[in-house]
Amino acid sequence: MRLATISVGGAPVCAAVLNDGSMLDIARAAGAVAGAAGDALRAGSMQTLISGGPAALDALRALVAEAEGGAHADARHPAGATLLAPIPAPRKNVFCVGRNYAEHIAEGDRAQKQKVGVTEHPVYFTKPPTAVVGPDAEVPIFPAVSEAIDYEVELAVVIGKPGRNIAKADAWDHVFGYTILNDVTARDIQRRHGGQYFKGKGLDGSCPIGPWIVTADEIADAHALSIGLTVNGEQRQDGNTADMIFDIPTLIASLSEGLTLEPGDLIATGTPSGVGYAMDPPRFLKDGDVVVCEISGIGTLSNTMRAV
Amino acid sequence: MRLATISVGGAPVCAAVLNDGSMLDIARAAGAVAGAAGDALRAGSMQTLISGGPAALDALRALVAEAEGGAHADARHPAGATLLAPIPAPRKNVFCVGRNYAEHIAEGDRAQKQKVGVTEHPVYFTKPPTAVVGPDAEVPIFPAVSEAIDYEVELAVVIGKPGRNIAKADAWDHVFGYTILNDVTARDIQRRHGGQYFKGKGLDGSCPIGPWIVTADEIADAHALSIGLTVNGEQRQDGNTADMIFDIPTLIASLSEGLTLEPGDLIATGTPSGVGYAMDPPRFLKDGDVVVCEISGIGTLSNTMRAV
Repeated sequence: MRLATISVGGAPVCAAVLNDGSMLDIARAAGAVAGAAGDALRAGSMQTLISGGPAALDALRALVAEAEGGAHADARHPAGATLLAPIPAPRKNVFCVGRNYAEHIAEGDRAQKQKVGVTEHPVYFTKPPTAVVGPDAEVPIFPAVSEAIDYEVELAVVIGKPGRNIAKADAWDHVFGYTILNDVTARDIQRRHGGQYFKGKGLDGSCPIGPWIVTADEIADAHALSIGLTVNGEQRQDGNTADMIFDIPTLIASLSEGLTLEPGDLIATGTPSGVGYAMDPPRFLKDGDVVVCEISGIGTLSNTMRAV
Repeated sequence: MRLATISVGGAPVCAAVLNDGSMLDIARAAGAVAGAAGDALRAGSMQTLISGGPAALDALRALVAEAEGGAHADARHPAGATLLAPIPAPRKNVFCVGRNYAEHIAEGDRAQKQKVGVTEHPVYFTKPPTAVVGPDAEVPIFPAVSEAIDYEVELAVVIGKPGRNIAKADAWDHVFGYTILNDVTARDIQRRHGGQYFKGKGLDGSCPIGPWIVTADEIADAHALSIGLTVNGEQRQDGNTADMIFDIPTLIASLSEGLTLEPGDLIATGTPSGVGYAMDPPRFLKDGDVVVCEISGIGTLSNTMRAV
């Protein structure tokens, strides 16, 4: 299934995307679903749906099948609804992974005239909920704050089942689904705060997410997805998730060591090569630039930069 | 005022601490308060109280004055109630500042045989909501994950008024109050993830906060507070908030550049010298150790380490 959050009369509505592009309003369609699963669906947010676990997801699958057969017509919104970030207000910062594709590490080391190479352990940082914006939203850039805004297309994992000290062998059981995330980065700020990435990665609007969450069952191999990015139509990044250094089970196992992952948590898994700051000369984003992220099996995420 | 979150029958209750130590249940006492301020108080959490702004705080002040005069007896819980973290479930990661006291920087550089010194800009990282625990709670330590658990007493600023690009001159207007935070840190993990602090600072239970929030009006000078920490009664840290390198207005101005601060946000402002890893030989925390943080004008925050 493809699960989206859409804006209806200004309010977020959790919806399943049907084959014809129309959106099934999950809370409305779930009127008659019994038990805790029904409660989770009727609560009406992506967070409550994910927290509802396999029972809620199974109940939703049945509703979607009914809707594809023509039922629940009164719970449908027409195709073309305004998409929000699939989890519009995450309840904690987004977990992010840096330096997870070899060619991206190499281009960064070249650009910074350093030789760091592959780290022994994954590099984690976070982006705050105030950074999250949805598909087609404008991404504010702040010329007074940064003159070096860059893009990074990333596959984001959505956690379903909670856990701590998750074994690699069990990691896939904890994945609810996948979405696309653009780790917009102020390169100048990223480096100047004692080397800690947070501030340069945490500006308002610097975390576009979308267009929707594709549930895990629909992605046969999350490590065989093409992942790319264009700026104003020019291809800048063109990679494959096969090239991650730390794969998804390794990331989930490592991140969850002594740290509980919860339903709805987002983990951005790093970006392939082709970022703007590593070009010679560097090319940063400017007002009006249209950045489109694409991952096969998920879709596209487009945002326009807007100087404020 | 001192504002606490207490556990009543297992549920969190937002309360004002009265002079006799009893706790005024804010939602119950606010039954007759009119308007948006009353709604904010009756919503019953520290987050909703803070989000209620000056009107809610003024209305609460009046209730507390009435209670000190003997009113609202039915809304009081006796002294000795179980304290939770004053914001038990922050809606985003806690903002933290590293390397903000000169003697702590010096001891760290000595211990790591490096010469980093004072950074030009503040060093920011975050701790996730899953790390937050309250006063007297056990702090889990995970011998299988880290063998180098350390403490850091810090003054935490609670943001009241939201804002972005806050000028230094306006920064104090955005401070709701203050509390104590222990930035429990796995030193081995802090260093091994490509130098990014997040993972080593983000373990479950690694962010004790409390005992309560003292509102800003009760702290005449947040840069004249003694700040110390003991382990099993032995003084380990003994500093003063006067010695911060980046003061609170500077931190609020810097952090809010292009990044919106929201009501209820927590900013931990760094720790003075005396941490365990910088001792010769290093002394890390072990099962059963009792760590007590103390800041003048606020109180004490005590937690026991428990190997799990």
